[in-house]
Amino acid sequence: MIGLIAASLTTLGFVPQVVKVLKTKDTESISLGMYSMSVTGMLLWLAHGISISDIALIAANSISATLAGTILICKLIYK
Amino acid sequence: MIGLIAASLTTLGFVPQVVKVLKTKDTESISLGMYSMSVTGMLLWLAHGISISDIALIAANSISATLAGTILICKLIYK
Repeated sequence: MIGLIAASLTTLGFVPQVVKVLKTKDTESISLGMYSMSVTGMLLWLAHGISISDIALIAANSISATLAGTILICKLIYK
Repeated sequence: MIGLIAASLTTLGFVPQVVKVLKTKDTESISLGMYSMSVTGMLLWLAHGISISDIALIAANSISATLAGTILICKLIYK
């Protein structure tokens, strides 16, 4: 249960950042290195989840890779 | 093995953001909501790891909570 709340917070924590970036189009202080590493890591987690058929890993990392990927794309576009 | 690389990337991905924030003292485009949620989630993961004595959860979340916590504190200070 505590793990479920923890997973929701770390996964959905990217939502306010996505909203802020899309609204302001400002990515000045956001680190390209961070989002490059994070998105790559999340996609590897997703691959790992698929290879061991773990639905929790697949669900959490599909969502977070989509959210963090959106921030990464915005960082590359708005600069 | 792929899980280990994935975990390293998603955990250490915060390093370039910490470096950037400490160097520029600019946190304008960083979301307070994101770091509030993320740090809370990481601390819950840490608590969960301690309760089930899982060293991987404890290690990864101690590091990421420290890194994301530093960004959160900077966001609160530099504004």
